[in-house]
Amino acid sequence: MAKYAIGVDYGTQSGRAVLVEIGTGREVATSVKAYSHSVMDEFLPDGVTRLEHDWALQHPADYLEVLGSTIPAVLNQAGISAEDVIGIGIDFTACTVLPIDENRNPLCFADKYKNNPHAYVKLWKHHAAQEEANRLNKIADERGDAFLQRYGGKISSEWLFPKLWQIANEAPDVYEEMDQFVEAADWVVSQLTGALKRNSCTAGYKAIWHKQDGYPAKDFFKALDERLENVVEEKLSRDIYSIGEKAGELTDWAAELTGLKPGTAVAIANVDAHVAAPAVGITEPGKLLMIMGTSTCHILLGEEEKMVPGMCGVVEDGVIAGFMGYEAGQSCVGDHFEWFTENCVPKACQEEAEKLGMNIHQYLTEKAGKLAVGESGLLALDWWNGNRSTLVDVDLTGVLLGATLQTKPEEIYRALIEATAYGTRTIVEAFRNSGVPIHEVYACGGIAEKNALMMQIYADVLDMEIRISASSQTPALGSAMFGAVAAGKERGGYDDIKEAAKEMARLKDVVYRPNKENATVYKQLFAEYTRLYDYFGRGENNVMKQLKAIKKASRKPIAAV
Amino acid sequence: MAKYAIGVDYGTQSGRAVLVEIGTGREVATSVKAYSHSVMDEFLPDGVTRLEHDWALQHPADYLEVLGSTIPAVLNQAGISAEDVIGIGIDFTACTVLPIDENRNPLCFADKYKNNPHAYVKLWKHHAAQEEANRLNKIADERGDAFLQRYGGKISSEWLFPKLWQIANEAPDVYEEMDQFVEAADWVVSQLTGALKRNSCTAGYKAIWHKQDGYPAKDFFKALDERLENVVEEKLSRDIYSIGEKAGELTDWAAELTGLKPGTAVAIANVDAHVAAPAVGITEPGKLLMIMGTSTCHILLGEEEKMVPGMCGVVEDGVIAGFMGYEAGQSCVGDHFEWFTENCVPKACQEEAEKLGMNIHQYLTEKAGKLAVGESGLLALDWWNGNRSTLVDVDLTGVLLGATLQTKPEEIYRALIEATAYGTRTIVEAFRNSGVPIHEVYACGGIAEKNALMMQIYADVLDMEIRISASSQTPALGSAMFGAVAAGKERGGYDDIKEAAKEMARLKDVVYRPNKENATVYKQLFAEYTRLYDYFGRGENNVMKQLKAIKKASRKPIAAV
Repeated sequence: MAKYAIGVDYGTQSGRAVLVEIGTGREVATSVKAYSHSVMDEFLPDGVTRLEHDWALQHPADYLEVLGSTIPAVLNQAGISAEDVIGIGIDFTACTVLPIDENRNPLCFADKYKNNPHAYVKLWKHHAAQEEANRLNKIADERGDAFLQRYGGKISSEWLFPKLWQIANEAPDVYEEMDQFVEAADWVVSQLTGALKRNSCTAGYKAIWHKQDGYPAKDFFKALDERLENVVEEKLSRDIYSIGEKAGELTDWAAELTGLKPGTAVAIANVDAHVAAPAVGITEPGKLLMIMGTSTCHILLGEEEKMVPGMCGVVEDGVIAGFMGYEAGQSCVGDHFEWFTENCVPKACQEEAEKLGMNIHQYLTEKAGKLAVGESGLLALDWWNGNRSTLVDVDLTGVLLGATLQTKPEEIYRALIEATAYGTRTIVEAFRNSGVPIHEVYACGGIAEKNALMMQIYADVLDMEIRISASSQTPALGSAMFGAVAAGKERGGYDDIKEAAKEMARLKDVVYRPNKENATVYKQLFAEYTRLYDYFGRGENNVMKQLKAIKKASRKPIAAV
Repeated sequence: MAKYAIGVDYGTQSGRAVLVEIGTGREVATSVKAYSHSVMDEFLPDGVTRLEHDWALQHPADYLEVLGSTIPAVLNQAGISAEDVIGIGIDFTACTVLPIDENRNPLCFADKYKNNPHAYVKLWKHHAAQEEANRLNKIADERGDAFLQRYGGKISSEWLFPKLWQIANEAPDVYEEMDQFVEAADWVVSQLTGALKRNSCTAGYKAIWHKQDGYPAKDFFKALDERLENVVEEKLSRDIYSIGEKAGELTDWAAELTGLKPGTAVAIANVDAHVAAPAVGITEPGKLLMIMGTSTCHILLGEEEKMVPGMCGVVEDGVIAGFMGYEAGQSCVGDHFEWFTENCVPKACQEEAEKLGMNIHQYLTEKAGKLAVGESGLLALDWWNGNRSTLVDVDLTGVLLGATLQTKPEEIYRALIEATAYGTRTIVEAFRNSGVPIHEVYACGGIAEKNALMMQIYADVLDMEIRISASSQTPALGSAMFGAVAAGKERGGYDDIKEAAKEMARLKDVVYRPNKENATVYKQLFAEYTRLYDYFGRGENNVMKQLKAIKKASRKPIAAV
């Protein structure tokens, strides 16, 4: 009798549950629920409390709605009994954090706080704590705190401490009142199991936690702000649970909500990108996973902790227990092509695409695919949204070089694709140069699934084979696998994620293999890219920052609303 | 009783006659005649003789048709008597050259040669003599011939000797048979007057002639090719006539052709850009004229001969007798914006422009005009068609830097305009730094006439006032003025071009004055432009040439037809 696990993947706009067959990884049923409150970036649910620029909130009730809607739906679709679902895992965007009271109720649920923006979930892309991040980085840098190196030299405004500090600064009552400040991922798991257990992935990547060294020292937090001296004891926890552990079992209340059986195993929560690694079979070092969407996230395991310049973070047990989990990123991938098609594709192309019944991406891809490597004479720096790795600099901007009066839209399109591939190669080389080997490359996400030209270009540029996830819901599949691990072998699951990955991870049959002739030309082009990368990215010519400074000075301040 | 002069301007696609009133410069009538044979770049008139890539020929019969069509037309339109037309001047594209026999008949008129491409007019943009130009430059450089410096270090493949040498190489019989190799400008004048007199403008700018030193030495020509040792004596002439002189008077035959009176004064021929200077009132040093069209040509007078790095040429009597005439250029101006609107403007913009009843340039200009200086954060290098001055390098290519996911089409459009303005400022500074002063700036041509935003940006970038020609046919007006000078004061004209310019040159009332606030920001942006200009343009980073080399290697050779 087949057994099943459910993975629930919480994205930016919606949550989805996928019911997966243990032993095969077959995705039997899927259900998606858009968040009722969507992303709140203008008003609170009261419709009158206005949010400032750069804010992005979510409503935690939406997360429970996802559970209550999608899990019954997949059970129903699949026509299987809840008894046969042995485990559940969830993954989330991160750092997506909220303040809760001692009963684990979000502060925003209380009448007293429902009109206070700081009582809600701060979504990963809430960027209003930039000032706090800047001060934190400055202070850490001046003090010479070693942890900075684990994060490419910079703590992002998207991460936990800047967001928490922002609350202390702007809503001290909320700060005081909260019992805990938790990742939404951990909070949802606590709603399922009745106990709050923080996961090693978000603790490590987003909350400056280190398995050996713990959090930064009290005197660091005190240097930030007297009130923060004991922040870990007061608002967080030093009890961190490794990815791959069991968080607990479904409570009666949660069983009622989801239609599953009480006692169903629940995995420690995870992050969407990181959970994808075992879903493509990665449970050991040397295999780079690219999660490719609007941006790209790179996940890699290593044996040792190395300081890789410009990576996003290195966390022990951060991806797979027993290994160092490395993360890097490119902040502009799918977004790049969206920008291009919206702003740069002429009417004639649009109309020809329509005539051929193709969408504009298909049309441009087909034309770009007919070009020989190097034929366009173009070279771009893929910094339209700054550079996350390896320069960690949001103020860098895009460059297109080599344009002539004969340059065609599909040539620019291809040059942008190539630029993102060179960006990836730069990251690969940074890992290698720091002693973190990469032998194989895997990819998942919409682009990896759909754009064969792009994946071939990546294979040629990296001069490595690329394998593609067979799932279009790779994170949810990964979460289901962790659900199966939480259940354990005895209950029909697995004892560890490595075993689960062996049976349930799924790859497409197609492998993108480098064309050696193309790889040779790309090697030359990459050398040119690298020279521009270093010239503009490492301060030799700071024109991009000068232009941003001039731009900033040029704008009249936006009138307050 | 009013007197008139006629200017005939020979362009790339058509010729036009303008009838101008002496004393006021009023343009009374205009007539345009498209060339019957257009530009021949695929076949000879026989329809079977195929031309190779990079060829561009014209048919000299078309030039006579222009005379026979447009001059009677303007007389007729204006309703004036031929008696009242006292002079005629012509200007031409250059270097546009043809082989003629001892009777001044083009070789292509002869049955024997009518199927031989080398017997026709080689148009300025005939680029098939590049190999000859490369060899010539190499040999001159190795020998250390000083003349190279007068031409920014390079003789163009568009100029006379490469074109003539190509004939010697590819059609030695045509080379042998020709009595003379002449500029079409001089040939047309010879058809009007019955005598061939070569003008100092094309001799200087296109045929390496120098008023003091003459042509390059025989041993230079011998070093190129034994057959060329006596090329000047055999195919050219050392008798050069200064711009502003009288070439002769209309013969009976020419009077019959044009409907003018025999004996009407004819000016020494001129070049379209150069003849525009007096038409905006420039007859003395320090005043820069920009002739702005698909590309921009810069004309400037100086007292002394200075070697300005990267200029196109310096020629005594080349523009106005008694002065050094300096020429510089930007190879991609109007072409730049055409490329952009054809290849980079999205459908939504096109449709909005249509809805507003604007053409796309008006639409983009209006939106770009609302941007503050520096607001886009963009900076471009205007090298989409190489860089003529001050780098003299066709292998340089365009750069756009500073792009983000918020970058809009009108911002790129404005950045391209600004880039051409920075290019102009670079030229202005090169002249100044070499001791050739510039106090005032003038502009003519379609862009100067139509695009107020662009001219304001130029004024702000140059931090100088810009005055605009009131004529939309500035070269033809200039030619008419030289016609009036050829007639002389006694016959109702002028004794020199300075007097003519005082009365007939015409400027618009509008003066573009620099906005000091904008100029301050542009100064900062220009500093950034200059740094990129030097970095990519002067060999510090030769990425553009590398990309061109890779591009060349990437293409399979085009199959011979």
